[in-house]
Amino acid sequence: MTKRVSVGGVLVGGGERVKIQSMTTTKTADVEKTVAQINALCKAGCEIVRVAIADEADAAALKRVKNAVSLPIVADIHFSPVLAVQAIENGADKVRINPGNIGGEKEIAFVADCVKAHGIPVRVGANTGSIETGFLKKYGRSERALVESALYNVGLLEKHGVQDLVISVKASDVPLTVRAYRLLAQSTKYPLHVGVTEAGTKEKGIIKSAAGIGALLVDGIGDTIRVSLSDDPVEEVLAAKEILRACGLGGDFVEVVSCPTCGRCEWDSLALANKVTEFVAPYSVRAKVAVMGCVVNGPGEAKDADLGIAGGKGSCLIFKKGVPYKKVEAANAEQAFMEELKGLLNNGK
Amino acid sequence: MTKRVSVGGVLVGGGERVKIQSMTTTKTADVEKTVAQINALCKAGCEIVRVAIADEADAAALKRVKNAVSLPIVADIHFSPVLAVQAIENGADKVRINPGNIGGEKEIAFVADCVKAHGIPVRVGANTGSIETGFLKKYGRSERALVESALYNVGLLEKHGVQDLVISVKASDVPLTVRAYRLLAQSTKYPLHVGVTEAGTKEKGIIKSAAGIGALLVDGIGDTIRVSLSDDPVEEVLAAKEILRACGLGGDFVEVVSCPTCGRCEWDSLALANKVTEFVAPYSVRAKVAVMGCVVNGPGEAKDADLGIAGGKGSCLIFKKGVPYKKVEAANAEQAFMEELKGLLNNGK
Repeated sequence: MTKRVSVGGVLVGGGERVKIQSMTTTKTADVEKTVAQINALCKAGCEIVRVAIADEADAAALKRVKNAVSLPIVADIHFSPVLAVQAIENGADKVRINPGNIGGEKEIAFVADCVKAHGIPVRVGANTGSIETGFLKKYGRSERALVESALYNVGLLEKHGVQDLVISVKASDVPLTVRAYRLLAQSTKYPLHVGVTEAGTKEKGIIKSAAGIGALLVDGIGDTIRVSLSDDPVEEVLAAKEILRACGLGGDFVEVVSCPTCGRCEWDSLALANKVTEFVAPYSVRAKVAVMGCVVNGPGEAKDADLGIAGGKGSCLIFKKGVPYKKVEAANAEQAFMEELKGLLNNGK
Repeated sequence: MTKRVSVGGVLVGGGERVKIQSMTTTKTADVEKTVAQINALCKAGCEIVRVAIADEADAAALKRVKNAVSLPIVADIHFSPVLAVQAIENGADKVRINPGNIGGEKEIAFVADCVKAHGIPVRVGANTGSIETGFLKKYGRSERALVESALYNVGLLEKHGVQDLVISVKASDVPLTVRAYRLLAQSTKYPLHVGVTEAGTKEKGIIKSAAGIGALLVDGIGDTIRVSLSDDPVEEVLAAKEILRACGLGGDFVEVVSCPTCGRCEWDSLALANKVTEFVAPYSVRAKVAVMGCVVNGPGEAKDADLGIAGGKGSCLIFKKGVPYKKVEAANAEQAFMEELKGLLNNGK
């Protein structure tokens, strides 16, 4: 089990539920827009938000942003230890530094002193693009270079008294990302921030993120995740929620199991599957609902569903926990099923 | 390495490229619709297609479907060994049987004789919903039950002389699917057909499939994949292609790396990322293109890109293989970059 750290009261690591992160795309100094985006992210399910601190105006604005939002804020710093210190003094709940570009031991020590004084954690976030030259020369663009580069900087922070650390080793290449985090998980006790970097536009980026983050989460690797998409960051949060759910880490929600249908299907189960999926979305209830095209894949493959429906010739079978409950005419199937579904979810509330 | 089998000339296993499968949603006896759907799947990149054989009309129609399409066809059979034999005699390139519902040794032997006479492979496709009762009682709804149930039927087919087998052990639960295939991969030499069953509607189903299939592919598990979506099967094929690409198994294509942008970004890199992603889609060229919001994530994080662009204050930097190539005004950046991109891809053709 990893060490547990607190990011402004949100716990990461040590067996805590995996937390969802995202990052604003607004200029942080534009307080109004930044606050609006953070609030939209929070509403979508984001639990920790990162903002870029690119200059002194951003660092100064952080104080006003902090006062206006409820989410813990991570200040993302490149190149400048001075900006890191300013961000911390203005209320950052965590700072993220990139080992390849923050400077040497002197700069790390300068940031470390401020971090300790404020009792916040630091993420050492290595990316394939900014591996420190020495490690890149020694190991090439590999998982070893990523992990060694991150751990070297972790060592420097530890040497200067920082104890609460989070580590990431992202690549835009999924297999490399998976290998790097697996190696890192064997090499550290600190919680891991997992993601595939520069994953691309929405549809492709979601697939890369689900493959990479999913491969790690099913093995218990990952304490907080960030899906990176070239899109509205709210989409990142929605995708992250679904990845957690897919990996059995999504908390209470209504899982909809539905078959792709095939030549055996004699009714429009796809339309009902979509309607049910949309209907259950707002319910934070642990339940499983199945919409199956035919009896072959019906009650049998959805035995553990609290409520299910399977099509037949002219009629559909509604079942509960795999046991036939009611036969309904195909024309009335949708209405009958939605009524049962409402009953299930409202009792469960 | 798994054994290699031929599905109507398309090779699966033994280190061959991972093949993409899908399944028709039409009634197979409706030859016109089935042929149209198979041709649409083929055009999208599907390499093997499965059709449901639910009755004698379907089995009889298979001959006409076969004559009208170029893709190898897998006949999906439940309950009836007689239908399996009819489908094989009508030209099926492979049959899929479900160990839990095809019958006992006598029925398996009956199908095996026909399979041998026609020299085609068989997929033994176990699903959590149809695990044989004995194994379910012994091991519960677990990876062990899935694998043992599949391997028991594989053993029966082997006993009756069938040598070309493909195995699947699908669940709608992603972690269970991953555990089952990992156990199966350790237990057999036959090629594996990998998928998450009843994954749901498009968006959620793609995430479940990418997580489950991706987790297996990054470890080299999987010889053919099927994404199951409650949607048009063409969507399954497009998602399968992206999953393979995400896992480094996608053959020649133009990878677009693009950052999610953050407060450092001072131009509309997201719009260009989407435009570039759309533009490169038809090119079967091995190339990497990067669209980065700012210089922090710019040339450095996209050092291996054949062509890239990163934003700055009022201007953008175009780079090739991480080396700055040209500075352009932000207003002209899109046009200048698209011209370079066309040059790259047309030379690469």
